[in-house]
Amino acid sequence: MIFLEDLAPGQRFSAGPVEVTVEAIKRFAAEYDPQPFHLDEAVAAEHPVFGGLAASGWHTAAMAMRMTVQALGHFGWGVVGGGGDLQWVRPVRPGDTLRLVAEVQEIAPSKSKPDRGSVLVRNAVLNQRDEEVQVFTVRLLVPRKPA
Amino acid sequence: MIFLEDLAPGQRFSAGPVEVTVEAIKRFAAEYDPQPFHLDEAVAAEHPVFGGLAASGWHTAAMAMRMTVQALGHFGWGVVGGGGDLQWVRPVRPGDTLRLVAEVQEIAPSKSKPDRGSVLVRNAVLNQRDEEVQVFTVRLLVPRKPA
Repeated sequence: MIFLEDLAPGQRFSAGPVEVTVEAIKRFAAEYDPQPFHLDEAVAAEHPVFGGLAASGWHTAAMAMRMTVQALGHFGWGVVGGGGDLQWVRPVRPGDTLRLVAEVQEIAPSKSKPDRGSVLVRNAVLNQRDEEVQVFTVRLLVPRKPA
Repeated sequence: MIFLEDLAPGQRFSAGPVEVTVEAIKRFAAEYDPQPFHLDEAVAAEHPVFGGLAASGWHTAAMAMRMTVQALGHFGWGVVGGGGDLQWVRPVRPGDTLRLVAEVQEIAPSKSKPDRGSVLVRNAVLNQRDEEVQVFTVRLLVPRKPA
């Protein structure tokens, strides 16, 4: 189990790979993001932005979270985040293979609650060409080591 | 179909409601965010932050996207966003009923591409007590009206 005192800027944790199938893209989209460019190859090919079938950004985010639990699930309270900056940098396509690299950026003990602190983590999802497809910069809540 | 010229700051679009069942919370978590506080009521009750079963933030985000497609799916190219600031403000609990209120904040024609512009939208998810549970402030790509 990881406490705030165990972490330092520059530390990296990684997870994956996860293969993105066309079936998974369409299944997620049908339930949560039912737009033609996530569901139908022919329509997606004509879309002026996507130009082909692409995973919902929220599907990428969900796959990233599964990898984040692998990478950071041993943090003291699990992976508990209040939010952050989420950027979809490139489309995720059928057949892509994704992996996660999480890098600790800042550590801040809480001023009001002595049992905890926050850790700023840059959570990057990369594809099989080592291109970033999503970056989520999130502040996680981490317990301090009991005195 | 909505073009950039049809939008103005202050315009609101809404969607929902969606009821959040305990089964849906556990099913999403099992696939994408398998942490005990999203899967097991007894363990969740002991968690120092959650104090009870709560939906994965990514599940809330996915439900919000489904409502966003209802609310903004008639935008010219669909709901196409590059990312933004995502904040989970309050936990989402079994039995909550969520709705979405999307408010246009800024409109900016593209300087380099004359066929499009960006629209800053504040996408708020509210529960049955009208409390915000998630806010995603996102820049969407919207086509301009053909000349």
